[in-house]
Amino acid sequence: MSHDAATLESFVKRYLDTVAGGSAAAVAALYTDDATLEDPVGSGEVHIGRQAIEGFYKNMEAAGSIGTELLQFRPGGHEAAFLFAITIAGAMRIEPMEVMTFDADGQITTMKAYWSAADITQL
Amino acid sequence: MSHDAATLESFVKRYLDTVAGGSAAAVAALYTDDATLEDPVGSGEVHIGRQAIEGFYKNMEAAGSIGTELLQFRPGGHEAAFLFAITIAGAMRIEPMEVMTFDADGQITTMKAYWSAADITQL
Repeated sequence: MSHDAATLESFVKRYLDTVAGGSAAAVAALYTDDATLEDPVGSGEVHIGRQAIEGFYKNMEAAGSIGTELLQFRPGGHEAAFLFAITIAGAMRIEPMEVMTFDADGQITTMKAYWSAADITQL
Repeated sequence: MSHDAATLESFVKRYLDTVAGGSAAAVAALYTDDATLEDPVGSGEVHIGRQAIEGFYKNMEAAGSIGTELLQFRPGGHEAAFLFAITIAGAMRIEPMEVMTFDADGQITTMKAYWSAADITQL
């Protein structure tokens, strides 16, 4: 189940590139069937399963063009923690920290995003 | 169980200040009796319980003077994710990302540290 650091970073970069691509279905395809997503952590809402996860990213799809940039990356066996910037429609920049776990094939099994209003900049 | 962002940040700063204080017993006292600690994530070793956790920090106690600096902080309900720098005996600087969960009283219930050799700088 464990992946080396370079492999984990490639999974994270693939995820950020796919988010920037703007297709909710393509992002959801990076997750396992029974994956879970909590964004933001503390919201009390956990999206369970690829269909629910695709629904979550549909909101993003509707928001306009997306840019992503990996700022900090830390590996951890079959997990990764990272800080990144996401720019939405050139109007808003958010810098979340996320923790993901991956299965043996590199599909995302869990995603948790940590951020609050303080991490949003209006552009 | 949920804490606001400022409260969570105060818990994290108390932790980093206590680590810099250098007493393993004082750091372990910030954890609950049945807390778990994984550092680094992926090592395959999870320290379970305050006594085991104190043992983990004893290694730090032996290493010499410690400095800590909070670089990035993200709140999440009863959790927090953060990036920090730790300097050991003026000889080594490590920049881990950590995720902690807290109980209602602000004691640490789980700690996971994400870092690898790439995050160490010899000073």
